[in-house]
Amino acid sequence: MKVELIRFTEEPELVVALAAKLCYSAADIDRLKEKVDKEEVGRFIDKLLNLGHTSPFEHASFTFGIEGISRVTSHQLVRHRIASYSQQSQRYVKLEGFSYIIPPEISKDEKLKREFEEAMEGLQTLYVRLIENGVSPEDARYVLPGGCETKLMVTMNARELFHFFSLRCCNRAQWEIREMADLMLERVKGVVPYIFKEAGPPCIKGSCPEGKMSCGRPRRSLQ
Amino acid sequence: MKVELIRFTEEPELVVALAAKLCYSAADIDRLKEKVDKEEVGRFIDKLLNLGHTSPFEHASFTFGIEGISRVTSHQLVRHRIASYSQQSQRYVKLEGFSYIIPPEISKDEKLKREFEEAMEGLQTLYVRLIENGVSPEDARYVLPGGCETKLMVTMNARELFHFFSLRCCNRAQWEIREMADLMLERVKGVVPYIFKEAGPPCIKGSCPEGKMSCGRPRRSLQ
Amino acid sequence: MKVELIRFTEEPELVVALAAKLCYSAADIDRLKEKVDKEEVGRFIDKLLNLGHTSPFEHASFTFGIEGISRVTSHQLVRHRIASYSQQSQRYVKLEGFSYIIPPEISKDEKLKREFEEAMEGLQTLYVRLIENGVSPEDARYVLPGGCETKLMVTMNARELFHFFSLRCCNRAQWEIREMADLMLERVKGVVPYIFKEAGPPCIKGSCPEGKMSCGRPRRSLQ
Amino acid sequence: MKVELIRFTEEPELVVALAAKLCYSAADIDRLKEKVDKEEVGRFIDKLLNLGHTSPFEHASFTFGIEGISRVTSHQLVRHRIASYSQQSQRYVKLEGFSYIIPPEISKDEKLKREFEEAMEGLQTLYVRLIENGVSPEDARYVLPGGCETKLMVTMNARELFHFFSLRCCNRAQWEIREMADLMLERVKGVVPYIFKEAGPPCIKGSCPEGKMSCGRPRRSLQ
Repeated sequence: MKVELIRFTEEPELVVALAAKLCYSAADIDRLKEKVDKEEVGRFIDKLLNLGHTSPFEHASFTFGIEGISRVTSHQLVRHRIASYSQQSQRYVKLEGFSYIIPPEISKDEKLKREFEEAMEGLQTLYVRLIENGVSPEDARYVLPGGCETKLMVTMNARELFHFFSLRCCNRAQWEIREMADLMLERVKGVVPYIFKEAGPPCIKGSCPEGKMSCGRPRRSLQ
Repeated sequence: MKVELIRFTEEPELVVALAAKLCYSAADIDRLKEKVDKEEVGRFIDKLLNLGHTSPFEHASFTFGIEGISRVTSHQLVRHRIASYSQQSQRYVKLEGFSYIIPPEISKDEKLKREFEEAMEGLQTLYVRLIENGVSPEDARYVLPGGCETKLMVTMNARELFHFFSLRCCNRAQWEIREMADLMLERVKGVVPYIFKEAGPPCIKGSCPEGKMSCGRPRRSLQ
Repeated sequence: MKVELIRFTEEPELVVALAAKLCYSAADIDRLKEKVDKEEVGRFIDKLLNLGHTSPFEHASFTFGIEGISRVTSHQLVRHRIASYSQQSQRYVKLEGFSYIIPPEISKDEKLKREFEEAMEGLQTLYVRLIENGVSPEDARYVLPGGCETKLMVTMNARELFHFFSLRCCNRAQWEIREMADLMLERVKGVVPYIFKEAGPPCIKGSCPEGKMSCGRPRRSLQ
Repeated sequence: MKVELIRFTEEPELVVALAAKLCYSAADIDRLKEKVDKEEVGRFIDKLLNLGHTSPFEHASFTFGIEGISRVTSHQLVRHRIASYSQQSQRYVKLEGFSYIIPPEISKDEKLKREFEEAMEGLQTLYVRLIENGVSPEDARYVLPGGCETKLMVTMNARELFHFFSLRCCNRAQWEIREMADLMLERVKGVVPYIFKEAGPPCIKGSCPEGKMSCGRPRRSLQ
């Protein structure tokens, strides 16, 4: 799996701070810009997050390039509706010799792993045979498995990322999308430390809302 | 494939007409209700559509139950973001002996059809073996094919349905989602004749916007 | 202020229950319909809410007609983006002798109230003079005050209503939109008791998230 | 009126091109990046626009700072739901001596202009009196007129901007929001020539869809 942060709003913390100050000030934008102090911006972002005043965070957006995830995972991802997606098409792109993901729970068992791989090879062969017999990729794709690799670009704003990370970095999320979400969080934390300081599952900063379904192991160690 | 219209806003045409009249009148809602004449509502809806004044159509919403479509099709469907979905989970539901869709282009060729079916049977067997060996459904699902059947409920408002039908009833849409969209359109036309009178691909009421990609066969016969 | 529930999805609790069961069952929709027991639907809705599984609640939508609120309030309302609005146009509708809202904090002071009313009468007169001198309503409206009355129709689904009520029924909300939100909640509770049983500000069912900004007076008595 | 482009996705045309190529190629993102030729990107963007393949344009987002517009205009603006807003609060910010917009149709008539200004001065005085008598800004704001100035930040992606410009740069749009939309279009064209080359009202590149309501004067001269 490869997760790359392709683009993001320049100096997102300044933009968020500017938007937030605009709401509560009589000053005009130029004067507010002068007043948004790079030194203090971290403290100000903290304050906004503590107050739950998250709408200004929508002005900062983040575009990721993601490769080597399964269709199982992309199907979960695209259910988040406040986001933009461009995904490699199985309708237009021929996927001879497609790559695929084996879940760890399967690959750890040598015998199951071999059967899994043989099945995938069988599907690869069948897919090619279908294409060679004039079947279009859009129809041959009916044999492609959930584990088949895909690639995509996704853009979300910071507020939606908070929501996404809270659901998908949780131990109760499916393992592959959690792995992807953890990498996305790592990437944005690398460049924008303040905004995402406490992003992640709810147990990072408070109690678990999952009740009886809780994993019981708060992931407070998440970086 | 089974497409059922489970619920829709009662008397949607009256609701749309009421909303539209509210925008342009000094009268209050009770008086507007009296003035919305059931007889004339059809002509009024026509007028709104001709003016392209489609925002009042958002107040009418439609909930469909859909079964016997492939995951290939549901993946396309859920990309429409102004809608609500509840889909059968491959994470929680065990799909031993799953059903599947064979594309007509494949089933018309006896030999390819047999190979397709054998591959599906192989996957059914493997899926069951994985489950029996303690693999969870959320991991076993990596072998399930794009052709695997799914079921779901979807709710869209009429304005979004206009957009959906314009894209998905078009000859250039993938055959299975077009079949599904045609059935959805048939269902809503059956109960709400005025609103959806000219819904469908753009060629129903005007020229094709697909340029060089046009199918060249306007579907004006669509009912 | 007048808040009327004009339309809502018939038997919304059954629809929500059906959608939720579909996600976790191998059964088809017709069999699920038989299994959705009207008696038990209340308990099932409770369970979904306790698990925080709120996406099925999007299939139930509610259309309100609202009159006698100020433009101050409608401007706050339309900031909720997951909703549909039709509002009386100040661009097309002539508002001679417009009605207006006086905030209680002002009307309780006889002197301030009189000055407020005189100012409004001055604006009514000016508005009419502008129109009579050939100024279009879209330009004359620049003199209309925030307190000027408006009417509108709004449609939201139940999940979005949860969010709306949590913010706008809170003591920290502006008084007029809170009054409106309280009436909306009363209306939906009147017809759909289970879904909205615990809807309202967060203090209805848990602790206040407002921190230092908390009103300190949980509104647990809210019906 | 002041419209400033505060931030936008760096090299938006490259990002859009990368996203579009990803959909139709077997290559991975790094190889696609090499293949996205800065020279040819303009021609490629043109092609996407001609095909109506606009979803990749969502990955490019634009943040504007806008000052000196009336509340009349901001109320229209915020009805666009696929966007993010931070607006100066009339609830928290005291607006003693507020500024206001006079519609040209009024200011061109000396007599009407004077009456308009006198009314505004009366409201300014009343607003201050209310505040001085302990009325909160959130209640005093009921006297503020539609013409009262506001400031805000808005973020939209390029695809939504296409939609926004098509409606709001049209001669049939209200004059002040059209002025604002024209300035927004000018700003983005200044930095991103290809993406917005044909943005604007539908008459820029085709025929007018307004039918009987058409202004009859295509604005083809729009820069």
